[in-house]
Amino acid sequence: MLKKIKRQVLEANLYLADLNLVTLTWGNVSGISREEGFVVIKPSGVDYKKMKLNDLVVVDLSGKVVEGDLRPSSDTPTHLELYKAFTGIGGIAHSHSEYATVFAQACREIVCYGTTHADTFDGNVPVTRFLKKGEVEKNYEINTGKVIIERFGKLDPAAVPGVLVAGHAPFTWGKDAYDAVKNNLILEKIAKMALNSLGLNPRLRQLPDYILRKHNQRKHGPNAYYGQR
Amino acid sequence: MLKKIKRQVLEANLYLADLNLVTLTWGNVSGISREEGFVVIKPSGVDYKKMKLNDLVVVDLSGKVVEGDLRPSSDTPTHLELYKAFTGIGGIAHSHSEYATVFAQACREIVCYGTTHADTFDGNVPVTRFLKKGEVEKNYEINTGKVIIERFGKLDPAAVPGVLVAGHAPFTWGKDAYDAVKNNLILEKIAKMALNSLGLNPRLRQLPDYILRKHNQRKHGPNAYYGQR
Amino acid sequence: MLKKIKRQVLEANLYLADLNLVTLTWGNVSGISREEGFVVIKPSGVDYKKMKLNDLVVVDLSGKVVEGDLRPSSDTPTHLELYKAFTGIGGIAHSHSEYATVFAQACREIVCYGTTHADTFDGNVPVTRFLKKGEVEKNYEINTGKVIIERFGKLDPAAVPGVLVAGHAPFTWGKDAYDAVKNNLILEKIAKMALNSLGLNPRLRQLPDYILRKHNQRKHGPNAYYGQR
Amino acid sequence: MLKKIKRQVLEANLYLADLNLVTLTWGNVSGISREEGFVVIKPSGVDYKKMKLNDLVVVDLSGKVVEGDLRPSSDTPTHLELYKAFTGIGGIAHSHSEYATVFAQACREIVCYGTTHADTFDGNVPVTRFLKKGEVEKNYEINTGKVIIERFGKLDPAAVPGVLVAGHAPFTWGKDAYDAVKNNLILEKIAKMALNSLGLNPRLRQLPDYILRKHNQRKHGPNAYYGQR
Repeated sequence: MLKKIKRQVLEANLYLADLNLVTLTWGNVSGISREEGFVVIKPSGVDYKKMKLNDLVVVDLSGKVVEGDLRPSSDTPTHLELYKAFTGIGGIAHSHSEYATVFAQACREIVCYGTTHADTFDGNVPVTRFLKKGEVEKNYEINTGKVIIERFGKLDPAAVPGVLVAGHAPFTWGKDAYDAVKNNLILEKIAKMALNSLGLNPRLRQLPDYILRKHNQRKHGPNAYYGQR
Repeated sequence: MLKKIKRQVLEANLYLADLNLVTLTWGNVSGISREEGFVVIKPSGVDYKKMKLNDLVVVDLSGKVVEGDLRPSSDTPTHLELYKAFTGIGGIAHSHSEYATVFAQACREIVCYGTTHADTFDGNVPVTRFLKKGEVEKNYEINTGKVIIERFGKLDPAAVPGVLVAGHAPFTWGKDAYDAVKNNLILEKIAKMALNSLGLNPRLRQLPDYILRKHNQRKHGPNAYYGQR
Repeated sequence: MLKKIKRQVLEANLYLADLNLVTLTWGNVSGISREEGFVVIKPSGVDYKKMKLNDLVVVDLSGKVVEGDLRPSSDTPTHLELYKAFTGIGGIAHSHSEYATVFAQACREIVCYGTTHADTFDGNVPVTRFLKKGEVEKNYEINTGKVIIERFGKLDPAAVPGVLVAGHAPFTWGKDAYDAVKNNLILEKIAKMALNSLGLNPRLRQLPDYILRKHNQRKHGPNAYYGQR
Repeated sequence: MLKKIKRQVLEANLYLADLNLVTLTWGNVSGISREEGFVVIKPSGVDYKKMKLNDLVVVDLSGKVVEGDLRPSSDTPTHLELYKAFTGIGGIAHSHSEYATVFAQACREIVCYGTTHADTFDGNVPVTRFLKKGEVEKNYEINTGKVIIERFGKLDPAAVPGVLVAGHAPFTWGKDAYDAVKNNLILEKIAKMALNSLGLNPRLRQLPDYILRKHNQRKHGPNAYYGQR
């Protein structure tokens, strides 16, 4: 199981880079084996093009390295917090993708302006609050996870598979590492279209709710009829 | 004939993806054999890179699958409505291309600001109204076709080979599937240039009518002299 | 001589396409043999990727085809007007490149906001007036050349190697076809940077004149010291 | 040592071009051998794709060519001023990258709006004043170096590895030529994100100082824990 997840996590990291969601070594993707309680994650500051399967780091949910010679991504504690709180997710992707990061920097939620957004995010893409001074100085990465969880409150992470950390950048997730990267790409695309839609009309309102719901349910509802069975 | 159209539809779908008008599995292209009354369309949710000729689905004008093992695009009923109403068209392309979708999201027609637009669209690119709640809840895709047809009224689909569905994205068409994709690309390009032209001058007016007409007729009029005979 | 120019014109047309200044078959590049009085130009509506040396069309300065089986670009008469009026130029490139076309559509000169602009254009990139109804209806392409020449007046085409035709797109020129394409690329780059500079500061003023002059002279003046001898 | 630096400088120049930070022959990268007092720099106006190791020019700190048949970049005197004043740097990259140049043209500092910026630049990216008439007319390139140094004052070039020259473009530096190019890329990315963040909110304020500091220190501080040891 772990072996399969390691391969998935490697491929998902390379996919993130291929999709131009990554500059240099920025970003990281992880996957979890829920049965074993192990998380596989990108090593810190390693070039995507040179990354090998054995460079990936395996940690347990307390953050202890159980496999691998390199140091795990410095964002590992954020991933672990999310895996512990969002028990249905199997993979997490973090990037500084250009347009999602713009909304994070402006501390502005991405309102659902169209069906492209509704197909994947069942409502606005939320933004966290800024971390407080004390939260930054100590356990910064853990607290980054905590403000995401705080922001979600009763929101369903399966219905809203991503978030913008204020002043920082997006985290997305999914049923596995690949799915998390796919949602990272989608978030980037809808962020770019939202930015330009607001350029055309700064007072643009949300897509009518019944259309938002319809598109989301067409893909994800109990009677979804998009794609193949 | 159907065989030829299947090949055309496959190539046109791949062309749509090559032109970067597509993210993931979004979008779909179809072609019609008017004699046989059959429409060939992309299967739903299938990766463009893995699509084979036999993955394409053939349906009749009532939507019944007559060939193919996969489910047709969920947007198939929209295509069928358009084929039935716009009897001169041979292919349809639907994408969520970035800039055309921005105008669709902002529910804003693309005014003709230059000869690039006039060369292909003889006037504004129209936007539909939003579908009503009842139209969304039942027969959503059929009704998407119907609001396009309603919006066109007396407009000539040959002179204006595309439309923006409010809050959704563009549909374009042409004499065959390839031509429909070409018009999808052109719509994307003129949308991007219109957005940026409005950025320079938010009160920009339409290109003088006589220049619009001249450019359109130079390519499409009875005395067209663009291209080779 | 003509053979050499034909090869140059072919390569320059392909270069224009490689630089992403071209969508589909839009745009055209020509070169002139001043001794022979012949102009070599792209055929009308032909795909850049399939263009061969023998597809190029040779015309004399009256527009008569002297070599080639295809029809020359529909913009040929514009090129001929420019060659006749601007006797120092050896090549012309016309594109609908995205950002230069935006300024053409907005009928807005590109003010020199930085040294990148000054390095190639010794002052603003001018915009023509709109052609009048009669000028469009009869001899449209000849009149397009004429309004460019009218706009230039005492401007030196060597110091300002390009123009924006109002509501249409850019024409650039140079000592040969390759140089004309190079200037087309530069015009596109400075247009994009000017648009975004105006986004940051809509009231942005021109670069101080003495810096503009210095940069232009560093590359083009009698004591130019940029590049190799 | 010089041989190693020549190879680094060649690769760094090619890397600058690969990263799309360069149009045509614009831009230049250099590296210094502090022991030998020699600077290796790109030749002036030479095509990146054709550049060979032996095309690079070696100059001493007075600007005298000590190796190479070509003329060094016309910006060489600017590089030399910076090497003399910023004694900790080992490489310099100059480009006209699109978005950094936009801020230079608008004479606007890039405020730190997010952690992406903070990770590399410990505070705003500064802009120089315009050079005065006399400074442009005589020793223009030396004076370009001098206004950068004047602008830096007590700023630490290691903490802020780049600058925008008013009306011109960015210069970045680093521990070697490769590092300088990397910072050029990062500057371009944060410039683009800053521009679009300001598009969303023209009155956007700086990232809270304690987050800026934290991110910068996470990568560069005495207890840095990003990357591998």
